Amino acid sequence: MMTPLEELRHSSAHVLATAVVRLFPEALLDIGPPTDTGFYYDFDLTHRFIPEDLERIEAEMRKVTEENQVFTRKEVSRSEAKALFENRGQSYKISRLADIPEEEAVSLYTNGEFTDLCAGTHVKETGEIKAFKLLSIAGAYHRGDEKNKQLQRIYGAAFFTTAELDVYLQQMELAKQRDHRKLGRELELFTFDTEDVGPGLPLWLPKGTVLIEELEKLAKETEFAAGYQRVRTPHIARENLYLMSGHLPYYKESMFPPMEFSESEGDAPVRYYLKAMNCPHHHKLFGAIPRSYRDLPLRLAEYGTCYRYEQSGELMGLMRVRSMQMNDAHIYCSEDQFAAEFRAVNEMYLKYFNIFGLKNYMMRFSTHDPKKLGEKFVDEPELWKKTENMVRNVLVESGINFVEVPNEAAFYGPKIDVQVWSAIGREFTIATNQVDFAVPRRFNLEYTTNENSKATPLCIHRAPLGTHERFIGFLIEHFGGGFPVWMAPEQVRFLPIAEDMHAYALDLAAKCHAEGIRVTVDQHTDKLGGKVRRAQEQKVPYMLVVGKKEAAENKVSVRSREKGDEGPQTFDDFLSRIRNDIHTRRLTVKLDA
Amino acid sequence: MMTPLEELRHSSAHVLATAVVRLFPEALLDIGPPTDTGFYYDFDLTHRFIPEDLERIEAEMRKVTEENQVFTRKEVSRSEAKALFENRGQSYKISRLADIPEEEAVSLYTNGEFTDLCAGTHVKETGEIKAFKLLSIAGAYHRGDEKNKQLQRIYGAAFFTTAELDVYLQQMELAKQRDHRKLGRELELFTFDTEDVGPGLPLWLPKGTVLIEELEKLAKETEFAAGYQRVRTPHIARENLYLMSGHLPYYKESMFPPMEFSESEGDAPVRYYLKAMNCPHHHKLFGAIPRSYRDLPLRLAEYGTCYRYEQSGELMGLMRVRSMQMNDAHIYCSEDQFAAEFRAVNEMYLKYFNIFGLKNYMMRFSTHDPKKLGEKFVDEPELWKKTENMVRNVLVESGINFVEVPNEAAFYGPKIDVQVWSAIGREFTIATNQVDFAVPRRFNLEYTTNENSKATPLCIHRAPLGTHERFIGFLIEHFGGGFPVWMAPEQVRFLPIAEDMHAYALDLAAKCHAEGIRVTVDQHTDKLGGKVRRAQEQKVPYMLVVGKKEAAENKVSVRSREKGDEGPQTFDDFLSRIRNDIHTRRLTVKLDA
Repeated sequence: MMTPLEELRHSSAHVLATAVVRLFPEALLDIGPPTDTGFYYDFDLTHRFIPEDLERIEAEMRKVTEENQVFTRKEVSRSEAKALFENRGQSYKISRLADIPEEEAVSLYTNGEFTDLCAGTHVKETGEIKAFKLLSIAGAYHRGDEKNKQLQRIYGAAFFTTAELDVYLQQMELAKQRDHRKLGRELELFTFDTEDVGPGLPLWLPKGTVLIEELEKLAKETEFAAGYQRVRTPHIARENLYLMSGHLPYYKESMFPPMEFSESEGDAPVRYYLKAMNCPHHHKLFGAIPRSYRDLPLRLAEYGTCYRYEQSGELMGLMRVRSMQMNDAHIYCSEDQFAAEFRAVNEMYLKYFNIFGLKNYMMRFSTHDPKKLGEKFVDEPELWKKTENMVRNVLVESGINFVEVPNEAAFYGPKIDVQVWSAIGREFTIATNQVDFAVPRRFNLEYTTNENSKATPLCIHRAPLGTHERFIGFLIEHFGGGFPVWMAPEQVRFLPIAEDMHAYALDLAAKCHAEGIRVTVDQHTDKLGGKVRRAQEQKVPYMLVVGKKEAAENKVSVRSREKGDEGPQTFDDFLSRIRNDIHTRRLTVKLDA
Repeated sequence: MMTPLEELRHSSAHVLATAVVRLFPEALLDIGPPTDTGFYYDFDLTHRFIPEDLERIEAEMRKVTEENQVFTRKEVSRSEAKALFENRGQSYKISRLADIPEEEAVSLYTNGEFTDLCAGTHVKETGEIKAFKLLSIAGAYHRGDEKNKQLQRIYGAAFFTTAELDVYLQQMELAKQRDHRKLGRELELFTFDTEDVGPGLPLWLPKGTVLIEELEKLAKETEFAAGYQRVRTPHIARENLYLMSGHLPYYKESMFPPMEFSESEGDAPVRYYLKAMNCPHHHKLFGAIPRSYRDLPLRLAEYGTCYRYEQSGELMGLMRVRSMQMNDAHIYCSEDQFAAEFRAVNEMYLKYFNIFGLKNYMMRFSTHDPKKLGEKFVDEPELWKKTENMVRNVLVESGINFVEVPNEAAFYGPKIDVQVWSAIGREFTIATNQVDFAVPRRFNLEYTTNENSKATPLCIHRAPLGTHERFIGFLIEHFGGGFPVWMAPEQVRFLPIAEDMHAYALDLAAKCHAEGIRVTVDQHTDKLGGKVRRAQEQKVPYMLVVGKKEAAENKVSVRSREKGDEGPQTFDDFLSRIRNDIHTRRLTVKLDA
């Protein structure tokens, strides 16, 4: 059964097909399902659709809806349906007919002159469809198989009301303007060199590197305060490590292939892999020194770069890459310490959301299924129950927004996936927060308890800021490239009104720079308007206009990205203000886009 | 011709052989040259030397010197020499005899009953050898070839005076105590896991990671102030990049073997290499955006981790590794800007030396040979002359300690190698500072000049702090593990006199931690003496003893590594003091070991 909204969208697809057949009677029809925001329909015809066609088709759809055609359902025999579509030469429909199980009824839906093979369901009449818009044309293989012919797919949006449609179209437009690949280029944040460096391997330009370094600084401060200790591990390891962790052979497809060489001339070759995750290296660090209960909880953190193989066709900007700088940490603790550690990790997530102005989030708590112990889930019934209870209690007590999803835990323990929504409504899975019963044992990790016995620690895997690549990609779109002052690649730009003001501007800029502020002076010789425009394009949070008057009074005229023209203030006042913005990591942006 | 000191040492080797033959008449003799600090001799005999043998042999040597035997030289015919050694069954001597060119005279040196095949030269009499000591036994292949038999080598030290010998033996002892591998283990700085991770790949424990992070912080601050911009690049790249840079195939032996895979299923495989240097990636970043003279000098900095293949037998602690975190930067500039940039780089070296208390350094300026242009050196005669002059002028004007070495430049430009000496006299080559005429052109790097034409920038490669691995290895030995407060892994340790003082200590420790100070509280229940000893072993710069009296007055009793027991002071005074140590990076260590 379709929901009413799905019915509306599915019916819109039929209206689209009705219009296309009116305009292009030779069009062969494949299928036309609803989508999350509208619908599409796949056509096969010699004419290549161009954007202007969408207008014509949309106008024709409008007529069909005004005609207020009634949708009628008719059940027919398989041979009757076949005859109908053979008669019309609709070969894709005949192919689709063969998919319907013998025992199921074949149903046709008709509106006006148009009849489609269709299981339904639909709205009553085409007149119900009022808020729709055709969006784009794309290529799509019949049945999604590249061995088949490529068809032409027309996408559309459809909502109950025009108001909803308008909001959606506006979001789409914003998303396009804020596309992180587009902004990454315009703001000179990162670049790719597919030919010589390789696809999916971002090269971070200085301005993008500022974002990385500011995020790392935030993480380091936050983690230092929370009692984490930092470690560094190499980007490669011998095959042995991944056999021990179990990543080989099970995860092999996602890893880069090995480098094989002899440790010394004449030795048998050994295999080294690029690391696809940091855990095994961290487990080795835990195990490198005898550990006692006094050392726990031991929180090892690293911004470790991992490498994962993805087919080049799957790569997408910063969102799907092959190199990942991960805000990783592993917390080794006793069972007694678990609840407090887990709570602290969640609170750290919330602290970060607050800093970035992420108001909407959802934690997805995946638990085990007791019927699948020893098969899908490690066979520790008591530990599962106990840990899941602890996790659930922490979530409830902290008033955290979460849903519980049974049977979706990892093999070795329950996990929490965290989803956030950007200022323009984009959903994003930041990271996973996992409990691990099993792997510490595989690595023979143990500590001496206060009763002088040996015990295996639990391990919490966590990465609240995810990877630099994906998180920065997300933030670029969330902030539309206009980052809060503390992380802005360029925080202040001086705009001298004339060339004889350059010296004054350079002098003040040097004072900013000495405080660690990222500052430039626009020394071009054009007029102020041009300078302002350039600074706006680069989304610089503070422009400081300096002319004779300002110089005489040791002032600057502030134009902030947040409030516009704020008039003159003393340079010292401005310095105090930006120091405070940076120090408190103030959210100096308007997020209601 | 040997120097007088070499003669003394070479003669000591003969005295060693004289003594060994007296004690082990069946010993076969190979060779016995002088070394930088003494001498060795290689023997073949069934008896395996043990440390106690060294004492007996040394005592026998003492007798030989007291006998004051005269060294006499005799030139003999080849056949005469052969007969002599055949008669004694000295097969290695016969083999060595064959190495002497036919036209050269064969000379024998005799002292007392001992005669050796030897080109000389020697001291007059064995009595001149007064200050010597046997040090160790090692295995050594005949002619250094592992296909030959392994001989037993005895090493000794020899100097003109006993005072010089004592200084040397003391330095040796200090070097042993300060061996970075030993201290690295004792201070829990780093570890290796040869079996599962791989040899030459250090895993940095939290305390070692502090050293890394503090060095990076220093570099980032220093480089920000000097107008550098930071970048990040992946650890891998396609083969193309290294073909373009010329590293392939010429540098292939030092690179890890490639990973070969298809970008997408069904594509032809391509090769990816782990980067062995950061330059090609940085050149790509320079080239990613159109550059103008306004952008120059462009100083791109990265602590990039590089990987180089070394045979496992060549690896040594942190000094010879396979993974290298490099304090790398590339400065792209015009010819006009070169001298100022080069001077600034040198000044940065000196600034760092000052921070680490490195008083002795030497810059080795390698220049080209005009006769080898186009062959050993890129064929740019004017650029060579001009740049070398600029470099020389900068060095002279800055009063920098340097030597000039002709014919040792890199292919693509002059270079400077910087050597420093640690507090215990260890020599260490930190890094190279190179000028590059050639590679920017290979990468088609160019900028628009202020006359709107295109020009290729010069590139300065520089890395004043070298790699974390080698530089930290060096600093561990330089500081003997007792790092200045600003970089000490643990800066402050509270030593509560009794358990009821724990709360007071924890409270003050929390105040330190909130300021970013690395602090612990010794909560063991043993007496103060034990606590002090543990803190001393860990070389913690500040121990704060707290008892009832201190708690009552809001004071702490300071025991500093620098000055010992300093008595009570207010906690606020102590905080101001350590803040200042950290902020100014004060050299809070005694370096006259």
